[in-house]
Amino acid sequence: MKIESVDFFYVSMPEILDIGDGSQDALLVRIRAGGFEGWGECEASPLTSIASYVAPMSHSACKPVKYSVEGKELNTAEDIQKISIAVHENSLDLLQADHTLSGIDIALYDLLGKKHNAPVYTLLGYKNAYPKLPYASQLFGDDAEETFNKAKKTKTTGYKAVKFGWGPFGKYGLAKDVAHLKAAREGMGPDAYIMIDAGTIFGEDFSIAKERLQALKEINAYWFEEPFFNGALNAYHQLSISEPRVPLAGGEGCNNYVQAQAMIEHSGVKFIQIDAGRIGGITVSKRVADLAVARNITYVNHTFTSHLALSASLQAYAGIENDIISEYPVELKKLAQEIAKEKILPDANGYISAPDRPGLGMTIDTIALKKYLVDVDIKVNGEKIYTTPEF
Amino acid sequence: MKIESVDFFYVSMPEILDIGDGSQDALLVRIRAGGFEGWGECEASPLTSIASYVAPMSHSACKPVKYSVEGKELNTAEDIQKISIAVHENSLDLLQADHTLSGIDIALYDLLGKKHNAPVYTLLGYKNAYPKLPYASQLFGDDAEETFNKAKKTKTTGYKAVKFGWGPFGKYGLAKDVAHLKAAREGMGPDAYIMIDAGTIFGEDFSIAKERLQALKEINAYWFEEPFFNGALNAYHQLSISEPRVPLAGGEGCNNYVQAQAMIEHSGVKFIQIDAGRIGGITVSKRVADLAVARNITYVNHTFTSHLALSASLQAYAGIENDIISEYPVELKKLAQEIAKEKILPDANGYISAPDRPGLGMTIDTIALKKYLVDVDIKVNGEKIYTTPEF
Repeated sequence: MKIESVDFFYVSMPEILDIGDGSQDALLVRIRAGGFEGWGECEASPLTSIASYVAPMSHSACKPVKYSVEGKELNTAEDIQKISIAVHENSLDLLQADHTLSGIDIALYDLLGKKHNAPVYTLLGYKNAYPKLPYASQLFGDDAEETFNKAKKTKTTGYKAVKFGWGPFGKYGLAKDVAHLKAAREGMGPDAYIMIDAGTIFGEDFSIAKERLQALKEINAYWFEEPFFNGALNAYHQLSISEPRVPLAGGEGCNNYVQAQAMIEHSGVKFIQIDAGRIGGITVSKRVADLAVARNITYVNHTFTSHLALSASLQAYAGIENDIISEYPVELKKLAQEIAKEKILPDANGYISAPDRPGLGMTIDTIALKKYLVDVDIKVNGEKIYTTPEF
Repeated sequence: MKIESVDFFYVSMPEILDIGDGSQDALLVRIRAGGFEGWGECEASPLTSIASYVAPMSHSACKPVKYSVEGKELNTAEDIQKISIAVHENSLDLLQADHTLSGIDIALYDLLGKKHNAPVYTLLGYKNAYPKLPYASQLFGDDAEETFNKAKKTKTTGYKAVKFGWGPFGKYGLAKDVAHLKAAREGMGPDAYIMIDAGTIFGEDFSIAKERLQALKEINAYWFEEPFFNGALNAYHQLSISEPRVPLAGGEGCNNYVQAQAMIEHSGVKFIQIDAGRIGGITVSKRVADLAVARNITYVNHTFTSHLALSASLQAYAGIENDIISEYPVELKKLAQEIAKEKILPDANGYISAPDRPGLGMTIDTIALKKYLVDVDIKVNGEKIYTTPEF
């Protein structure tokens, strides 16, 4: 079959708050072919990704993303890989292209899974989707007391693992950070996994990040995530060999395979965190997962948006039995909750799995989403090159 | 003074050809403050970069680029560095932001130079702008005969150095590539510098690139550029230690400092090529130039567009006496020729220099450019958030 249509839907909460919550808007991609429909989601800045899809060509290596997608053949996973390679070649100088490709690649896998009546992870060669331990991913409280209360509530809800990140961390000095770390441990109790996410706050500054290691060790942090900008290999590496040793995690900012490869091979991280909505979709995520296995690095999904994005992020490492940790957003805005009718919920043992349904196993709630739809019109020299489509 | 206005102008040739010629369109940035005006240029996909400047916020780390620029203080080079840092923090998850910031940063330096009546390179701490040997940067011919004729013409024009790249190279097998390489040497004669640019054609495939080393050595290629995707550290490194040894060049695709740092420290390149219009402007280019000096790697500008972009690209290493090679586009489309009234031309010895005039030393020809102006309108929920401004 051939790709018949590719449509982008920009949905948004009525008000976007200036907080580190990535579930406040979304860019959904709907692809149709051969009577089937697949859906994907791109991380971040919907308008910019829409523009990269429809922009006029600048030169041979700066074509709009649509050039490599529309009308193309789609029968096997190899066809999706071909499209991925084509986007990288034809949109080499279009920086945003990787984020846009991500949602497209996810939608193509969803569509192909539906056609073959098979979950996406089986198209990747996995036989099983092993259970993953979800960690309740959330923002730090504004002060240590609020962090304590959030941790306590998370424990009460039944989570065995929690991640606190962003918010005030790294902004108000060492003592405040230590207070937040201790509050997280006190609230969750001695046995829970606790992950800490610095949200790149220390830039490339190894020495300030190093000051936090002692407290991280004392609360037995399972990992210390993104102390630095993505790709700041030297700062990561220095911190990874500093005492006391705290395992590092990073990689969510990678927008292609070789960036993730550099993080795996040169940064000293023990956990490589991949967002299928940024790195180029499921195709590239799977390549990174294979490399992680070969290098004995633990693969973890990065997901802070909808359950559609969560399903997409789980596929690439669904079949890796040993990598059991999974990011699980628990503070989703209503919009992100309503994108898919199905939810990926923890089972009686507290574990989640990639859905055992065709494709990504999600039904998009187009009726619920109508109220969030953002109307966009882009005109170039009088010609309308994008207008928000109908659901 | 405070930044009063930031305006983006998308200009384009009436027809964009499907060739590796980056001079067919441009995104110009005009910034006004305190009665002065600065101009910059962003590389690639004008519509996408405009969208990233005006896009609604997605979350705290995915703000539009304008959030970190408009109304900000501008009196010193440190103020420009502050804006650069702010864009990286506030637009962390907006992939396109680095390309957009590039033109803004360049315009800010131009403006500041005009205010202080000083060339930009002096604002970077350099006392002199040392002469650079321009290489005539051009595309391979469609066949070896055309490459020979282009080389011969380039030699006749007086250039002592030439680069051939893109076009058919790497697409039709080893024999054809070798024929192009020999034709380039024959046309230029035995004494000229010849650089070869593979335009990332071999992706991450070390072995196919390696097959070209023998012929590159035989024609005494000064460097072999971008055999692989930017950041493909392993493939670069393997090739850099392969026999026969041919110096490698790369880095034009870097869109931030740490990517360039990784190329310098882990790829084995001898030449780091930086495009000020992609890496975040002159601020980030200068950081890379400083690192290159410290690591004994030769810094080279990457420029395939206008003389405004050329001036911007020269500033960051103008004061480094030993790094004398400079990319010099010789096949500019009329649009790119008309952007600036002044040209940076080779002197009697065949060398070029960063202009000794205030700012970037360029006057934008707004009258000539009117015929190239692309009308863009972007509406979000009925509100016009971008419309092409008046020159």
